[in-house]
Amino acid sequence: MAGGVGSRFWPMSRSVHPKQFIDVLGIGKSLLQQTYERYANHICPPENILVVTHASYKELVKKQLPGIADENILCEPLRKNTAPCIAYASYKIARKDPKAIVAVAPSDHLILKEKTFEKAIKACFEKATAENCLLTIGIRPMRPDTGYGYIQYVESPVKEKDPRIKKVKTFTEKPDLEMAKFFLQSGDFLWNSGIFVWSVASIIKAMEKYMPEEATLFRNGKDAYDTPAEKQYIEKVYEQCKNISIDYGVMEKADNAYVRSSAIGWSDLGTWGSLYQHMEKDKDMNAVVGKNVMLYQSKGCIVHVPKNKLVVMEGLEDYIVVESEDILLICKKQDEQQIRNFVNEVKARKGEKFV
Amino acid sequence: MAGGVGSRFWPMSRSVHPKQFIDVLGIGKSLLQQTYERYANHICPPENILVVTHASYKELVKKQLPGIADENILCEPLRKNTAPCIAYASYKIARKDPKAIVAVAPSDHLILKEKTFEKAIKACFEKATAENCLLTIGIRPMRPDTGYGYIQYVESPVKEKDPRIKKVKTFTEKPDLEMAKFFLQSGDFLWNSGIFVWSVASIIKAMEKYMPEEATLFRNGKDAYDTPAEKQYIEKVYEQCKNISIDYGVMEKADNAYVRSSAIGWSDLGTWGSLYQHMEKDKDMNAVVGKNVMLYQSKGCIVHVPKNKLVVMEGLEDYIVVESEDILLICKKQDEQQIRNFVNEVKARKGEKFV
Repeated sequence: MAGGVGSRFWPMSRSVHPKQFIDVLGIGKSLLQQTYERYANHICPPENILVVTHASYKELVKKQLPGIADENILCEPLRKNTAPCIAYASYKIARKDPKAIVAVAPSDHLILKEKTFEKAIKACFEKATAENCLLTIGIRPMRPDTGYGYIQYVESPVKEKDPRIKKVKTFTEKPDLEMAKFFLQSGDFLWNSGIFVWSVASIIKAMEKYMPEEATLFRNGKDAYDTPAEKQYIEKVYEQCKNISIDYGVMEKADNAYVRSSAIGWSDLGTWGSLYQHMEKDKDMNAVVGKNVMLYQSKGCIVHVPKNKLVVMEGLEDYIVVESEDILLICKKQDEQQIRNFVNEVKARKGEKFV
Repeated sequence: MAGGVGSRFWPMSRSVHPKQFIDVLGIGKSLLQQTYERYANHICPPENILVVTHASYKELVKKQLPGIADENILCEPLRKNTAPCIAYASYKIARKDPKAIVAVAPSDHLILKEKTFEKAIKACFEKATAENCLLTIGIRPMRPDTGYGYIQYVESPVKEKDPRIKKVKTFTEKPDLEMAKFFLQSGDFLWNSGIFVWSVASIIKAMEKYMPEEATLFRNGKDAYDTPAEKQYIEKVYEQCKNISIDYGVMEKADNAYVRSSAIGWSDLGTWGSLYQHMEKDKDMNAVVGKNVMLYQSKGCIVHVPKNKLVVMEGLEDYIVVESEDILLICKKQDEQQIRNFVNEVKARKGEKFV
């Protein structure tokens, strides 16, 4: 899934070039490229990877993943959250291989432990092959974060081959701080990573049960898929279908949901703070992406600027300094939640071209 | 005089596009354009204005002063301070009009009171026409600034028609703070504005007396001036002549130097602090040059960015934020004296292209 706009990282991430296409950590690869390689190297043949993205990003995807076939890029005409995206891909996959086992993943997350991740996904594949179930990768929470969804689990009624796989009791959307603290203490809750594993048959069955209108729209396209009529058909479907997440549309309602608790070194890189945590720091704890950045008497800053930009910074402590083409943002790290407001005001006062 | 490099204002001012060519105050005109108009509007016919500049700035001068004739732009092949610059122009002027009265002015200063300035220059013209003397415009000091030259004056031995004109007793180069405080208290000292008035005959006479080698070099060019041989001749002369200021080469030694104390609203705009003082400020005392600058919880900052750049700044107090093409500088206002060091380090580490 590579269709998001990533507005929290404005102006590094912009609607014409969002977060998943950016080398946010300054390691030489965009998050999409990292995600693609994570699967292509260890999980499945590259030709089995589908990228679902907004139509306007098709060329970006092709540029960043030069090995990918055109027909493996599924273009969404509108942003309708994860459920339509997954439905579209699932019906297309089912046409080719009704027995397929599928992993669904956001393309803008970080996973540090590749080996552990491979093991986690393969354990889920095994269970998804054996029975009709919907699996998600759960992350042991490290702080009472109110920005994530939480999954409460119970021991499976039958003994699991992989003891890390648990039965899901409840899904909870972003809780308040009180609740998040309780979840953390209880020990029965995991963060929802948004990475799913299931057989294509299981997810289609669940969609047809819990979101039948959307499922019907996508199922009825099966004669159009992989023909010149597909594009027009999908445009019509996206206009009609609801904006709905797979969590809300299916997972919260399903009675066959499982979670595998997996220490994969995960971060959704959803805030500058979480990004900072994963960036390399200099001796003054500055995290710098950029080739010509000279810091003096500066500490704890995040600097993200283009390669060719020379930056001289003096006397800044705990600031975010980001430049992206025609935009410069300087903001206290502790005030990063204000960035959304800045973006809205920029949009209102200066127009769409700056967002 | 428009040949300087203005390194104190890096990166706004860069060697390829220095301070005199920049609209530093954001009023729609560069300092050179303001200086040119100051003379052209009130002091002399525009065709009598010569611009002496470094050869590499010739096109910039032509672009900014589209009315100027090619032969009125005198190109220096090397930077040798003010004395060679003034000698070159003086010998050229003397060939055309040996009786000419001349005003010499830097092109990167600010003069707020145009009317008072006009009066001051014209009073000096009158004295320079009547007798063999060298005049400078003096500014009543407002603080014990250690960055300026000071002129000690005494009452003229004869009664001056303009009582603001005084006889110069001493010129003092940049003093230390103790000395500057003394100068300020004494009341007999003025800042040296670097604006001079004299007859071309007087300055040539003085140069031939006090810096005869340089004077001879330029005098000997009179057959080459205004011919195709001028350029080559001047290149040879500049290689041979010393790097020397007119203050040191002539004014400090001359016994016919006068100063006119003039309240012309002068600033050499030599530091960000002095620039800030003369810029328009918003309600939070931020001085902004740029069309798309949005400030939040920011106070007392100087922001100087290109028109097309969107800047969002949050939580900065008393900072300088300057962007110029491929360079961004963020620096505490109080640390602006460090900018010279930054420039030197940039030069050493990143090369000439960034300075």
